[in-house]
Amino acid sequence: MKKYDNLVTNALGRVVPEIINGEKHVPFMGVGKYKPEGRKHAPTIASCADYPADGNKLIGSLKEALVKAGLRDGMTISTHHHFRDGDLIANQIFDIAHELGVKNLRWFPSASFSCHKVLIKYLEDGTIHHIEGSMNGPLGKFCSEGKMAGVGILRSHGGRYQSVQDGEVKIDIAVIAAPTADAFGNANGVQGSAACGSLGFALADSQYAEKVIVVTDNLVPFPCIPWQIHGNFVDYTVLVDKVGLPEKIVSGTTQVTKSPDRLLLADLTAQLCEEAGLIYDGFSYQAGAGGTALSIGIYFSEILKRNNWKARFIRAGSNKYPVAMLEEGLVDYILDGQTFDMEGVRSMRDNPNHVGTSPFTSYNYHGKGNFASMIDVVILGATEVDVNFNANVVTHTDGYLLHGIGGWQNCLFGRTVILPIPLFRDRIPVILDEVTTICGPGELIDVIVTERGIAINPRRTDLIDKLKDSKLPIKSIQELKTEAEAICGKPEKARISDEIVAAIKWVDGTIIDVVRKVY
Amino acid sequence: MKKYDNLVTNALGRVVPEIINGEKHVPFMGVGKYKPEGRKHAPTIASCADYPADGNKLIGSLKEALVKAGLRDGMTISTHHHFRDGDLIANQIFDIAHELGVKNLRWFPSASFSCHKVLIKYLEDGTIHHIEGSMNGPLGKFCSEGKMAGVGILRSHGGRYQSVQDGEVKIDIAVIAAPTADAFGNANGVQGSAACGSLGFALADSQYAEKVIVVTDNLVPFPCIPWQIHGNFVDYTVLVDKVGLPEKIVSGTTQVTKSPDRLLLADLTAQLCEEAGLIYDGFSYQAGAGGTALSIGIYFSEILKRNNWKARFIRAGSNKYPVAMLEEGLVDYILDGQTFDMEGVRSMRDNPNHVGTSPFTSYNYHGKGNFASMIDVVILGATEVDVNFNANVVTHTDGYLLHGIGGWQNCLFGRTVILPIPLFRDRIPVILDEVTTICGPGELIDVIVTERGIAINPRRTDLIDKLKDSKLPIKSIQELKTEAEAICGKPEKARISDEIVAAIKWVDGTIIDVVRKVY
Repeated sequence: MKKYDNLVTNALGRVVPEIINGEKHVPFMGVGKYKPEGRKHAPTIASCADYPADGNKLIGSLKEALVKAGLRDGMTISTHHHFRDGDLIANQIFDIAHELGVKNLRWFPSASFSCHKVLIKYLEDGTIHHIEGSMNGPLGKFCSEGKMAGVGILRSHGGRYQSVQDGEVKIDIAVIAAPTADAFGNANGVQGSAACGSLGFALADSQYAEKVIVVTDNLVPFPCIPWQIHGNFVDYTVLVDKVGLPEKIVSGTTQVTKSPDRLLLADLTAQLCEEAGLIYDGFSYQAGAGGTALSIGIYFSEILKRNNWKARFIRAGSNKYPVAMLEEGLVDYILDGQTFDMEGVRSMRDNPNHVGTSPFTSYNYHGKGNFASMIDVVILGATEVDVNFNANVVTHTDGYLLHGIGGWQNCLFGRTVILPIPLFRDRIPVILDEVTTICGPGELIDVIVTERGIAINPRRTDLIDKLKDSKLPIKSIQELKTEAEAICGKPEKARISDEIVAAIKWVDGTIIDVVRKVY
Repeated sequence: MKKYDNLVTNALGRVVPEIINGEKHVPFMGVGKYKPEGRKHAPTIASCADYPADGNKLIGSLKEALVKAGLRDGMTISTHHHFRDGDLIANQIFDIAHELGVKNLRWFPSASFSCHKVLIKYLEDGTIHHIEGSMNGPLGKFCSEGKMAGVGILRSHGGRYQSVQDGEVKIDIAVIAAPTADAFGNANGVQGSAACGSLGFALADSQYAEKVIVVTDNLVPFPCIPWQIHGNFVDYTVLVDKVGLPEKIVSGTTQVTKSPDRLLLADLTAQLCEEAGLIYDGFSYQAGAGGTALSIGIYFSEILKRNNWKARFIRAGSNKYPVAMLEEGLVDYILDGQTFDMEGVRSMRDNPNHVGTSPFTSYNYHGKGNFASMIDVVILGATEVDVNFNANVVTHTDGYLLHGIGGWQNCLFGRTVILPIPLFRDRIPVILDEVTTICGPGELIDVIVTERGIAINPRRTDLIDKLKDSKLPIKSIQELKTEAEAICGKPEKARISDEIVAAIKWVDGTIIDVVRKVY
């Protein structure tokens, strides 16, 4: 089997394959242009007659559960990443697969992290054929170097839900690591010593996989409440000593920045939002977990307080900062996709206004709407932006695939999308003629805030109009690029071959771009 | 089209049609014997591109929404019955259909009540072809008299979920009356002036219907939390003056009985449970809302208190009695399918341990288990029981179909199922050689408690053994029947023709029995 075939040029001018790992895909056609046909994936109908009447689905070990679930060559195995770099289960699955001599598995995690780098040996020995899912760090590097047998496919959180719902990816076995569960398989992430918050990334897996295994280290009598995962979807439950390391969900920065440059970005962003009238009584915003985003959140909360306003909701990735705002009454709800610290976990467990969400409610583009498009202000990062406002979030300018998409693409549908980014990193300009990989079309990106000036997408004439008398350093994106190049010079072309090693999906399942082998 | 065809004899010896209203059905094959094949119903894939980005799906009127949803001849229109006799929306739908000249609709309510008797005119003029759903009172009488153009089909709450999930009933338009909703369609039943508790009966409809309309009289800004119904499934929202009459959810008795006979039934039932060791620290039971069941609940709570025990969960239909137990710490959780009074609504809204459930979690037989089979003690009623413990819950001995199935069939899967029933009603014996309509197979019914004695199903040798030295008046079911007949005489045969007017589904979608025309 060829790794990919049928190269075509998509609506953004990127050459992408229509056949990947032997499966058909659609090239990107423009935002909102591709209309899905057909029906959702229809899982096999089960019968209670085949499940224990006492609800006890406990199996002696994960190995036994995988064998009972029929683990065999070529299957698609899914896991979630709510433990982030503290995941203990995914590696065990492939240890077992290797021990059983199973080959050519498709691993379909909601994301992978550094802790999964031990899986490289199984990518090398054929246990795992390829990864479909965001690859943060070492697995991304491995993929970038063309060492994976198949082509990697990266999806946003919403795109992952969409792909499962639409039957684009059919999960054979979903393994759901759960901080608390009952023997029937009801499970949640907010209780137990490994509490990590929501289990929303595993929702699609539970609903659509043929076989579902819940693994927990905290077994409670039925009913496990809240039941973020319903046991009615679950085939087997497994009790282990330790299901994950919750201390490792704290990934990246969770402290407000002390860097003067980043504080400047935060300050400029908040000023711009205030001057443009984007903040109002009842507004909503998406808060990232990086240092700059946290600082912006603090500025927002000051603006709210000063005006005696209240936000309606914060879309999070939560940690102690939005939690504090909720508890101070500065916001009605936190709609949370994943918690980034223990304060987030505590709040989601105890506060009914801190609502665990799944990619179905928040991000699935093949639903009857999703709430990402209702967020007033969205603050995101990017590795690169081009002069047409297209942005990259997965590769670096040297070509290496080192980051996942997360909810980034999905949040681009927010009403005003702002990227506060440094003009250059390690003397490499961030604003370029063309980004290495397009993850988000420029038409959805409204403002670039850098420490040397702010560029507003010309499409946002409303913003330009509102800010025409502003003292903010508003420039064209070309001017910003020129300034960056005056300081750093033109960046070197990456040493990239033609060979495609990964595909980047758009939120509707079409291929927006590819990643090519670095040499 | 013939109303029904292909008569066959099912596993209980009942003659049932394989073709009803032109659609194919499977005859009952025995408990747990029918194994479904194939896949769940797959709804059409939607796209956010076709829904307003601001989430505002508000339409001027229910009529406009129905027209936009494509209302036309022969469609299946679903509604839920959480307002019970206080439903205001179902009648409006068919007024609109009639006004538009739409014909031959299949009405698929989760149940119908006396307030729907005005729909008889639409059953007569061809606006509605037939009803699939429990028919309480006047519509049941209408059906019994052979006046409906099609054959009625009655399903349990779980069977209704199963039929939708499996694609046996494809809902074209679901109309969900919601006490609170946002313009996106997120909805709940616990807030607003018409708060009625859960919206769980509408879950399947929201998930599987092609078009979903949420109607509310309490519109809140996004997000409506809790979101028992997800707006991501909703096409249109409609604001009306009044969505339902919550005071009418109080149906039937919600006071403990003062009747000495019923108190005796309650006392005998509680004694039996205690002596047989069915009540223990961590046990669970299903509490009905009738006077006898409420009194049994009170006995149970006294037994718990006396032993310093705590129940793990109560399966409810909740009202002030289980709520009081929850608040007194006598039970960990109420798992609630529908609230029967305002105390139930308040508790479900405010107490995270009062959990709204849907027929998916509780009752769907075509899931990977459901929790009905995990309930220790189930207390149910019946209109008739036969000497083989088969029971009837829909028709009276005169042949009239006057009651719905509700969760009755589903709860038969509880560990010990007890029917506390009077030995006769209006001088008609309740225990017969053969019930008019079999709704539940005798193998699932464990104990009949009457004011003149208790009959234990011979299959339950464990119970017989535990109670062999009991002073309780344990008799054979034949003895009870003989006693009843000694007092009342043999009941008259009902004046029933051969013509089939309704079919009774078993929890797996097979036909367990039929109802025949009364003349």
